Amino acid sequence: MLGICYYPEHWPESMWAQDAAEMYGLGIRYVRIAEFAWSRLEPSPGQYRFDWLDRAISTLADAGLKVVMCTPTATPPKWLIDLYPSILPVDIKTGHSRGFGSRRHYDFSSPDYFREAMRISTVLAERYGEHPAVVGWQTDNELACHDTTHSGSEAALTAFRAWCQQHYSDIDALNSAWGNVFWSMEYRHFGEIELPILAVTETNPAHQLAYRRFSSDQVVHFHDEMVRIIRAHAPGRFVTHNFIPMVDTQTDNYALAKPLDFASFDNYPLGRSDLFFAKRGAAMFKPYMRTGHPDFSSYYFDQTRGLTGKHFWIMEQQPGPVNWAKHNPRPEPGMVRLWSWVSFAHGADVVSYFRWRQAPFAQEQMHAGLKRIDNSKAAAWPEIEQLVREMALCPDLLEQQVKATVAMVSTTENQWVCEIERQGDSFNQQEVEFAWYSALRQLGVDVDFVSPEQDLTGYKLVLVPCMPVVRPEFVKRCQDSGALLVFGPRTGSKTTEFQLVPQLAPGLLQALVPVKVLSVETIRPDCAEPLFIGQKQYQSQCWREELEVPQSCQVLAHYHDGLPAAAQHQRAVYVATVSCDDFLKALFADLLKQACVETVVLPHDVRLARRGGLTFLFNYSAKPSKVAAPANAQWLLGSATLDGYGVAIYR
Amino acid sequence: MLGICYYPEHWPESMWAQDAAEMYGLGIRYVRIAEFAWSRLEPSPGQYRFDWLDRAISTLADAGLKVVMCTPTATPPKWLIDLYPSILPVDIKTGHSRGFGSRRHYDFSSPDYFREAMRISTVLAERYGEHPAVVGWQTDNELACHDTTHSGSEAALTAFRAWCQQHYSDIDALNSAWGNVFWSMEYRHFGEIELPILAVTETNPAHQLAYRRFSSDQVVHFHDEMVRIIRAHAPGRFVTHNFIPMVDTQTDNYALAKPLDFASFDNYPLGRSDLFFAKRGAAMFKPYMRTGHPDFSSYYFDQTRGLTGKHFWIMEQQPGPVNWAKHNPRPEPGMVRLWSWVSFAHGADVVSYFRWRQAPFAQEQMHAGLKRIDNSKAAAWPEIEQLVREMALCPDLLEQQVKATVAMVSTTENQWVCEIERQGDSFNQQEVEFAWYSALRQLGVDVDFVSPEQDLTGYKLVLVPCMPVVRPEFVKRCQDSGALLVFGPRTGSKTTEFQLVPQLAPGLLQALVPVKVLSVETIRPDCAEPLFIGQKQYQSQCWREELEVPQSCQVLAHYHDGLPAAAQHQRAVYVATVSCDDFLKALFADLLKQACVETVVLPHDVRLARRGGLTFLFNYSAKPSKVAAPANAQWLLGSATLDGYGVAIYR
Amino acid sequence: MLGICYYPEHWPESMWAQDAAEMYGLGIRYVRIAEFAWSRLEPSPGQYRFDWLDRAISTLADAGLKVVMCTPTATPPKWLIDLYPSILPVDIKTGHSRGFGSRRHYDFSSPDYFREAMRISTVLAERYGEHPAVVGWQTDNELACHDTTHSGSEAALTAFRAWCQQHYSDIDALNSAWGNVFWSMEYRHFGEIELPILAVTETNPAHQLAYRRFSSDQVVHFHDEMVRIIRAHAPGRFVTHNFIPMVDTQTDNYALAKPLDFASFDNYPLGRSDLFFAKRGAAMFKPYMRTGHPDFSSYYFDQTRGLTGKHFWIMEQQPGPVNWAKHNPRPEPGMVRLWSWVSFAHGADVVSYFRWRQAPFAQEQMHAGLKRIDNSKAAAWPEIEQLVREMALCPDLLEQQVKATVAMVSTTENQWVCEIERQGDSFNQQEVEFAWYSALRQLGVDVDFVSPEQDLTGYKLVLVPCMPVVRPEFVKRCQDSGALLVFGPRTGSKTTEFQLVPQLAPGLLQALVPVKVLSVETIRPDCAEPLFIGQKQYQSQCWREELEVPQSCQVLAHYHDGLPAAAQHQRAVYVATVSCDDFLKALFADLLKQACVETVVLPHDVRLARRGGLTFLFNYSAKPSKVAAPANAQWLLGSATLDGYGVAIYR
Ligand SMILES: [Zn+2]
Ligand SMILES: [Zn+2]
Ligand SMILES: [Zn+2]
Repeated sequence: MLGICYYPEHWPESMWAQDAAEMYGLGIRYVRIAEFAWSRLEPSPGQYRFDWLDRAISTLADAGLKVVMCTPTATPPKWLIDLYPSILPVDIKTGHSRGFGSRRHYDFSSPDYFREAMRISTVLAERYGEHPAVVGWQTDNELACHDTTHSGSEAALTAFRAWCQQHYSDIDALNSAWGNVFWSMEYRHFGEIELPILAVTETNPAHQLAYRRFSSDQVVHFHDEMVRIIRAHAPGRFVTHNFIPMVDTQTDNYALAKPLDFASFDNYPLGRSDLFFAKRGAAMFKPYMRTGHPDFSSYYFDQTRGLTGKHFWIMEQQPGPVNWAKHNPRPEPGMVRLWSWVSFAHGADVVSYFRWRQAPFAQEQMHAGLKRIDNSKAAAWPEIEQLVREMALCPDLLEQQVKATVAMVSTTENQWVCEIERQGDSFNQQEVEFAWYSALRQLGVDVDFVSPEQDLTGYKLVLVPCMPVVRPEFVKRCQDSGALLVFGPRTGSKTTEFQLVPQLAPGLLQALVPVKVLSVETIRPDCAEPLFIGQKQYQSQCWREELEVPQSCQVLAHYHDGLPAAAQHQRAVYVATVSCDDFLKALFADLLKQACVETVVLPHDVRLARRGGLTFLFNYSAKPSKVAAPANAQWLLGSATLDGYGVAIYR
Repeated sequence: MLGICYYPEHWPESMWAQDAAEMYGLGIRYVRIAEFAWSRLEPSPGQYRFDWLDRAISTLADAGLKVVMCTPTATPPKWLIDLYPSILPVDIKTGHSRGFGSRRHYDFSSPDYFREAMRISTVLAERYGEHPAVVGWQTDNELACHDTTHSGSEAALTAFRAWCQQHYSDIDALNSAWGNVFWSMEYRHFGEIELPILAVTETNPAHQLAYRRFSSDQVVHFHDEMVRIIRAHAPGRFVTHNFIPMVDTQTDNYALAKPLDFASFDNYPLGRSDLFFAKRGAAMFKPYMRTGHPDFSSYYFDQTRGLTGKHFWIMEQQPGPVNWAKHNPRPEPGMVRLWSWVSFAHGADVVSYFRWRQAPFAQEQMHAGLKRIDNSKAAAWPEIEQLVREMALCPDLLEQQVKATVAMVSTTENQWVCEIERQGDSFNQQEVEFAWYSALRQLGVDVDFVSPEQDLTGYKLVLVPCMPVVRPEFVKRCQDSGALLVFGPRTGSKTTEFQLVPQLAPGLLQALVPVKVLSVETIRPDCAEPLFIGQKQYQSQCWREELEVPQSCQVLAHYHDGLPAAAQHQRAVYVATVSCDDFLKALFADLLKQACVETVVLPHDVRLARRGGLTFLFNYSAKPSKVAAPANAQWLLGSATLDGYGVAIYR
Repeated sequence: MLGICYYPEHWPESMWAQDAAEMYGLGIRYVRIAEFAWSRLEPSPGQYRFDWLDRAISTLADAGLKVVMCTPTATPPKWLIDLYPSILPVDIKTGHSRGFGSRRHYDFSSPDYFREAMRISTVLAERYGEHPAVVGWQTDNELACHDTTHSGSEAALTAFRAWCQQHYSDIDALNSAWGNVFWSMEYRHFGEIELPILAVTETNPAHQLAYRRFSSDQVVHFHDEMVRIIRAHAPGRFVTHNFIPMVDTQTDNYALAKPLDFASFDNYPLGRSDLFFAKRGAAMFKPYMRTGHPDFSSYYFDQTRGLTGKHFWIMEQQPGPVNWAKHNPRPEPGMVRLWSWVSFAHGADVVSYFRWRQAPFAQEQMHAGLKRIDNSKAAAWPEIEQLVREMALCPDLLEQQVKATVAMVSTTENQWVCEIERQGDSFNQQEVEFAWYSALRQLGVDVDFVSPEQDLTGYKLVLVPCMPVVRPEFVKRCQDSGALLVFGPRTGSKTTEFQLVPQLAPGLLQALVPVKVLSVETIRPDCAEPLFIGQKQYQSQCWREELEVPQSCQVLAHYHDGLPAAAQHQRAVYVATVSCDDFLKALFADLLKQACVETVVLPHDVRLARRGGLTFLFNYSAKPSKVAAPANAQWLLGSATLDGYGVAIYR
């Protein structure tokens, strides 16, 4: 199914009906509205204006469209800020208040904002909760975007002290857990605790981790209450939230998604690619500047699906150039169609485009829409027409379930650990995880992202690229899974309170693979060194651990000095270094074979994904490409010879 | 004529008479004084000390020198700041007060400073306005230098709210003009308006543009009043201001120059080159590191002349290494003479050197003067002696008028639009404009910079490199001009209120060249792509617009994918991309021919300029160069064979 | 002798006895304790807890170990900050208070902190001053680390005004000395003076220099009083301080070291190398990434020895990877032993490792120790065992005195001048000085660092790489020394009040080498130019002075344009440019011969050092190397054929 993001308040009411008719005509069935409309819904304190929204919804419903309603809490109006200035968040890098004039100018710890946000949510839920045209709700918008999870406000300090009291009860327990003795950082009572910001030099990493957990809890608490309010007034309607990339929320995304019916994702492959690959040279970047890296969108799709273990929505899909990256190229012709198909292949139930018509004013006027500001049809329009025709060829698409046999384990908590303690400037947990994911995808393997609290039974291969904090229950789940297990650098190295594990890394995982990390070094990115599997040479880079490997283990790879770089014990593998991509591809090919997971030889820039009985092929290159498909493949779309930027589907 | 910047207060009074005699002996006729002398003129509140200045002026006058007096308002003394601390400006990037201890520590919106600055200006104008030795006045010094146009102070906020009220009258009109509905940014009354700074993420570009216009108006208002005061007390004296590069004032430079008799420019080719070309590699930079780029000084000269449409002064001319760029090379031997001649060729009436003698103390002690601190003659001295001898060979020099047939249209307003909305980090309006200018200059063409509010009649070719905001009157002027017109990327794309034009870019200009910009993309600087004129290949880079070109237009260039990159309709051309320099040179060569503007084949690093009947040749290279001059050329200086760093003049 | 840094408060008391026994068993004799233990010694205001420290000292003493006690003033506890919030320093770049949560969160100008720091020092000195196991004291810890010398606080402002009053007496004298007339920066009384921070643009360099002198005096004053207190209560015990690299203290290190018995240094070759060579390419950096540059540690050792003219301690020696550099590689096998031997060769009496056992918690948990957190022995352990065995082969090692015939003159004051006035972004005084030092060391020459206030008699060659401020007494000392003298760029160019010397640079040194610096230019690092000694070509870079050289001088080198770049007059040489390393090596080889200082032809990466009758050879490469040693060499360790990372000693 397809959807659209629409802002009736941006356009003359006289245009609404034709817009709605054209949406329906294009094949769109869902319309998301009202996410930034607080100043129109409550122009002055307590003075509500619902008439225009009532009419907008009616107009859409009359055209056969279903409405996804939003709480407008991402943009509190000026009068609210002036009434309660402490709503504004405080920048943790400077200690300055972050002012009104854009969006997300609120502090999750502000009691005033919590009350007011829930008030407007309640008012809207009461009015539209049972509206027949409103089939679901989106909470807020892109929670945590623009680095708004953390605040250095007085409100945050007060709440953090209370959080610490609740979590540690006793100040001596906190001092001991954090190792505050180290630099006489000991507190005598909870009221002495500071936020771990703006100190002379780096603060205690355990203090920082507690602050990140607290900040995440504040977001989740805010969001939980909002979902509770919607559910109380909107029976039978779904509730979702449109996530930004998981790495940017600074929140426990599993916890955030917990009360939702399903998760949604805002997918901007080109903008995100520009930022993610900013340090990479043109040789790597340029081939994908108008397509996105072949594994980049699906990386986020598989993560989003993993949040609830269910299919998901693309709530916002890039339809052309955007405005917010450092450079904003146009998608290659066909990419909007291709990206949409990739979404469906990885488990989307709805792809909703952002936005209907490009806005002629304000911050995003250079962000493309399906229609241009002169109301002409933009480049994405015929691609969506084509997509709708093609979707009709796969009538059972949405009934198909994605079901991977390879799982990747990842949590925000461990991202925090790696961010707080880089140890080497070139170590980036996200890049390591993406490299592992991409190596698997190049081998034609489908991947689930799972939480360490999730049952692992049924997976043949479980990979944990970088997870310093490992709990006993997770070790148990690994053991019980029967899967072949692969642990990457840093995994198992830290306690839950950001201390080194007493038995040396990988700590509790030594029950599975009894190696010991004797020391860790980090290396300048331009000083990589050889890494070997047998005689074949690859590169070790950035992060290298010195391993003690007992006789019972088999050494899978070694460093330039002959010392072990990866080792296997029975069904568990430990990889002790960050490496080049080719190393991962070679290593994983072997391990997938061990795990009896089928791999597929794919042409460069072609990717394969399976949703139930359907297999999808995607060509990210302008050049046609020939794929070796099964002889009995029943082609629903295309063929084994993929066009440039082509899509093919077979059963 | 030649001038000098002199600070009698820096030297023992016993040195003044000999300094004055030597100035006169060297050929200097104008002396600028008193620009930073407030603490000596009013050491304590209301206690004036004019005796020393009276004596200094007398000494200079006795030696035959004419005095240019300054208002000392760029450096308010400490006691004034302590009396009125709110004089200090506030940094818009941090919200911090910018303190005393250097210069320009005042807020254009401070009512206290406005009053005090006009008081000291009045006092000086009353005392020296009719002094026979004082022939003219310089207002303040380098207004806006050190990013002082914008302030985030309470005073600025108060004044901005009043400015908004005056300009929009009605708050709904403002909300609508800015599109404040976009993120619930709507205001209920003018007192709710904030400065567009220090927000969570980017603020509304229309809000930013209004703030820039307001800030510019504050500078102009301050300056207008100062000029008014001087004129009231100094009948018959000229009033000028020494501009920094136009791009750095953040002020409407045409408006600022309006009350002046003529504009002046402070010319530091090496310091400015070091900053402007900082990102360029040594291959491009090194040949010019001691000469400045051959088009770099004249670019500013032509702009300065354009401010009032009259000849101008160089109020400060670099005489050797300066102290304030990131790297400060020494000029090649002969460059001080060459730069001086370039100034005259482009319309200077006076070239005044900064400064007489290098200061041994304070911030600029590493800034060269004509004399060293041991009172010996520095490297520039003999070059100026030579210049004086050479000027005698062109007795009618100052009677000659610069008269170009090619015009370039540019405004600060459009610089603001491009700065506020980069869209691509590598898009720099100034670099685009400079590239267009340089291409013309390499073809031996003289260029006028003109305001879009100026009559264009008489020009054969009018170029508008990048002017998003186009008003109907300008389109009319273009039509009436009869000139061949060339519009660059972004031109015509925005309304006056920073909205996209409803008919798509180039908006109103479609009356001249009926193309449509369907989409815009920006590209990493290392990902340039081919661009073609016919079969000849160039480079498209950074900024690319997708053009719809009707049959009535001729396509002049196309992209790598065959789509049009430049198109002509009758007498108007639209160029849709930023390009390499060679593309511009090739395109402009064709268009100049169409426009019947004569081009000249010049050796690399040689430039030609015309002032009335005089033609000047300049060689920016160390190697001699042979120019094809007319057979009947009457050589006033040099010959068709230019020495290294040589100058030649013929009639 | 060997020592160790130990934190009994970090470990269960039950581990102490075994730790002590193992220390002694390894060959360690000194244990430094208590440097960060304030919160354990005084958990609440006035409530002291000495029992645990008493027991820790007893345990160590019982094992035969000697204790070095510290004042814990680098880490004031939270309750003290809450009692006196103005203890916190203020960041001079932002004006923000620098908060609690790490270390060194105190302002040297805070009267409250001064009183409290001296109180706790007195309490500790009274209790442990005559303790038989406590043989010496370390003051505070790494004074000035984390940029804490400068503060922008109210307390600093008040103290600075008083300091100015004391140093200049008369405000007119100050205005004149600083050249405040320049931009109307004149003060009417000392109460008007500001700190030279947070101004609109750069502040007066003389003002900045005064502020740096003041800040240094504050540190010295703080430290002097602490030493006085310890001496008053600890008769017969030594007092030392553990210096960070001299360049980072922003303090007059000679003054700081003056009251000490000897100076100590904290030696982290890899961490420091990573930062110092961050801008250098992998070709230069990678060979040394696990060894440190061959001259890098000794550069600091020779400086540390120079502070008091006596032998020194390494108070903290890196034993493995650290945590605080941008990248943190592991030392090559053998480097801990090699670095230790280098310390002894350059005059260390004790090398003390940081730290006994890696801490599992808090900020430095990734910093290696001699033992891992599982109490196993880390990589350095066997190397120290080897070192202890080898030291037994040199029983008279500590009786040997380092005695160089080449001296290098350097002061913090001149570092300040060069930092305040870069003139070119690529000019770095420290890099120039290191390049000169390294060239000498590559020639096998031992170097003393000396203060310009020190007698130079006995030195054959005295080098002054970059010392703008030269006083008459220093010129006298140079003349009296009889040494061959070499002065580098900028030397002699400034007065003590940061004005240009009236006679042009090198000012007073013209009595020795009568050249004149006519102008100075700075050049982009990628725009270096040829530099010649005779026909042999080298590179001039970054900083070039134009020299007037009288006939009486011999030109030693010239620029690409033939102008002189270095000149000699009798026994004094002036070098006018920064150059490539090869130029220095060639020039110094000639000058050393003139000075009758023996040079040694050393293989690349091999260094030689002499301590009294002992000669040490160090191989910084993995490859064995053969050195030409005297035929009658009596080898105490190794031989003329050095192993990879090998050490050899002969008498
Ligand atoms: Zn309710
Ligand atoms: Zn008057
Ligand atoms: Zn006492």
